[in-house]
Amino acid sequence: MTPERYARLRAVLDRRQPDLTIITDNVHKGRNLSAIVRTADAAGIAEMHAVIDDKDYKAFRGTAMGSHSWVDVQRHPNITTLIQQQQAAGYQVLAAHLDADSVDYRQPDYTRPTAVLLGAEKRGVSAEACALADAHITIPMMGMVQSYNVSVAAGIILSEAQRQRAEAGMYDQPRLAPAVYQRILFEWAHP
Amino acid sequence: MTPERYARLRAVLDRRQPDLTIITDNVHKGRNLSAIVRTADAAGIAEMHAVIDDKDYKAFRGTAMGSHSWVDVQRHPNITTLIQQQQAAGYQVLAAHLDADSVDYRQPDYTRPTAVLLGAEKRGVSAEACALADAHITIPMMGMVQSYNVSVAAGIILSEAQRQRAEAGMYDQPRLAPAVYQRILFEWAHP
Ligand SMILES: C[S@@+](CC[C@H](N)C(=O)[O-])C[C@H]1O[C@@H](n2cnc3c(N)ncnc32)[C@H](O)[C@@H]1O
Ligand SMILES: C[S@@+](CC[C@H](N)C(=O)[O-])C[C@H]1O[C@@H](n2cnc3c(N)ncnc32)[C@H](O)[C@@H]1O
Repeated sequence: MTPERYARLRAVLDRRQPDLTIITDNVHKGRNLSAIVRTADAAGIAEMHAVIDDKDYKAFRGTAMGSHSWVDVQRHPNITTLIQQQQAAGYQVLAAHLDADSVDYRQPDYTRPTAVLLGAEKRGVSAEACALADAHITIPMMGMVQSYNVSVAAGIILSEAQRQRAEAGMYDQPRLAPAVYQRILFEWAHP
Repeated sequence: MTPERYARLRAVLDRRQPDLTIITDNVHKGRNLSAIVRTADAAGIAEMHAVIDDKDYKAFRGTAMGSHSWVDVQRHPNITTLIQQQQAAGYQVLAAHLDADSVDYRQPDYTRPTAVLLGAEKRGVSAEACALADAHITIPMMGMVQSYNVSVAAGIILSEAQRQRAEAGMYDQPRLAPAVYQRILFEWAHP
């Protein structure tokens, strides 16, 4: 490990956001999940949460981005329990979902502890998850097609979260708890 | 064709932006190009431009989104000529590219006639194309990974273009030339 590399790891950890995360509700294509992980890293997300079946999880771990990732992807068996856990921990859960009561994705305050919930490629966010979410957010679309690829939707929503957090100075000083910071630094420096 | 369907086609054409486009410089994976086309449709782009070799173009046309698309994808043999043509037609060409002189992607005025230039998965935007572009734009990244998937980058940049154009009222009344409007309406209504 060169000193430059070590400094780079620290600079990235200095910008990690312990209170911003992604939840995927049965996003099953490995390449979509990989692109979401890559985008989460870019927004400073340290840990994300996936409900995904065994076969799809295996395929995802086999992809280049899945096998060695800078974001900790936690697997969960049940979307309902997962959302309730996040809410109990103080997160607002924003379901990316087109609905009568959806608000524009730029409207929420992303400087609050926030979990962005993304749905499956075909089925979208499940009904149980939609019912539990604190709000439904939607990216306006001007064309014929009714939805974005899920990883593109993740990128657009996270770019807004990042914009708000940058404006609020949330990338300007370390925000991870010292113990978490040191644990991740150790893992990254000793792969 | 139901009256509702016909009205929907017209509503989409009413929002098409004749002076906003995408140029892809050897983006070769069919699924990336498909996701870019889907995202272009969402921003109201009517026509985009691709420099792509025969084999990759065939694979792209074989994908679900490639075979029937709402966006006209024009193929070009040469990136230099293509960029010069666009500039001669009055477009600013913005290369999505990380460079010393890059500006934040939110800085340009996207209400001007604009072509967003995207680079290949591995190689990025070619040196010739970078040299010709009017500006280099970059999406700030806070993490370890150095670039987004190209279709995610397209989504983030086009969401900003769309935001600026929506604010300027550019989706509020038809902007296609009447002859173009009628031609596309006829094609869409008689597939
Ligand atoms: C391909 S879409 C699923 C479409 C599905 N047919 C539906 O109606 O929900 C996959 C996921 O991407 C996200 N997404 C796609 N387009 C979106 C948009 N315009 N606004 C908000 N989220 C979007 C949502 O999380 C969605 O569940
Ligand atoms: C995977 S990237 C190519 C990375 C390549 N190694 C390079 O250094 O250019 C594919 C394309 O996505 C776009 N892109 C990805 N991340 C970007 C960012 N942060 N800012 C601007 N464009 C980006 C660019 O057009 C780039 O050429």
